[in-house]
Amino acid sequence: MDQIAKLKAIPMLAGIPEEDLEALSALLTERRFSAGENIVTEGEDGEDMFVLTEGAVDVIKHTVFGDTFVVATLDDSMHSVFGEMAVIDRDKRSSTVRARTDCTALSIDRQSFDRFCTDHPLCGVKLLRLISVNLVRNIRKENDNLKQVYQALIEEIEAD
Amino acid sequence: MDQIAKLKAIPMLAGIPEEDLEALSALLTERRFSAGENIVTEGEDGEDMFVLTEGAVDVIKHTVFGDTFVVATLDDSMHSVFGEMAVIDRDKRSSTVRARTDCTALSIDRQSFDRFCTDHPLCGVKLLRLISVNLVRNIRKENDNLKQVYQALIEEIEAD
Repeated sequence: MDQIAKLKAIPMLAGIPEEDLEALSALLTERRFSAGENIVTEGEDGEDMFVLTEGAVDVIKHTVFGDTFVVATLDDSMHSVFGEMAVIDRDKRSSTVRARTDCTALSIDRQSFDRFCTDHPLCGVKLLRLISVNLVRNIRKENDNLKQVYQALIEEIEAD
Repeated sequence: MDQIAKLKAIPMLAGIPEEDLEALSALLTERRFSAGENIVTEGEDGEDMFVLTEGAVDVIKHTVFGDTFVVATLDDSMHSVFGEMAVIDRDKRSSTVRARTDCTALSIDRQSFDRFCTDHPLCGVKLLRLISVNLVRNIRKENDNLKQVYQALIEEIEAD
């Protein structure tokens, strides 16, 4: 399957004209990762965003004690996007994303993404909306996590 | 000061052509709130995003126990944006925003925002990028909060 056909299969790119998909395709790099490999690493710099096209990945965070825990598992059935915070700001990676199986992802770096959005603004608006939806979903999930941990803390204090 | 002049004073709108600012201005509503008034309410539906132009507001969350705590205070010196999650998805408000002083804000609803982004896509890309930067900042803040509360929980458990 060529890259344009792969892009057409990604639901978040539905409705993007073929001409724009071709321009986007030229900016994407197909990358393969082996099971167990870190695709992005918490705390490191990074400027690539990924769309998972084959396989599954774990999203992992470190606690202040150095333990790790899996926050989410993403697979290709969702064509999940990860690393998108890096194309928005220039801060460190907030999580590690580790290949759970051998996997393939399409990546785009911040500069290419910005250029694409400026050169194809109607598509840029669509892509940024989709990234924003992803970000909002993550904020709502973090909010819920925070409430749960806070509740556990209060219960622990009251049990003393 | 007329509304266009007010918009020009907002750093996040710097570089947006006057013609687009005029179109945006036509979609904005100036709203006044009294000190103590809830501008948005956690858990309720809402579809307006706000830019604070005068005064200060508290961002307030409820714990699972019904207590409230102030997560942030925003003032007009920052031309702070709030309620932006409502123009991205259709879920409930994640926080209460309460006027700390009498204040004035410009608001835009989801539908008008979407229309503006589609009709003025180059500006749409800029605005969505700025909203995304705000969202990413909030995720990073929530991450830090979660780590702190989690650390406190572990310390509390270990102290038993």
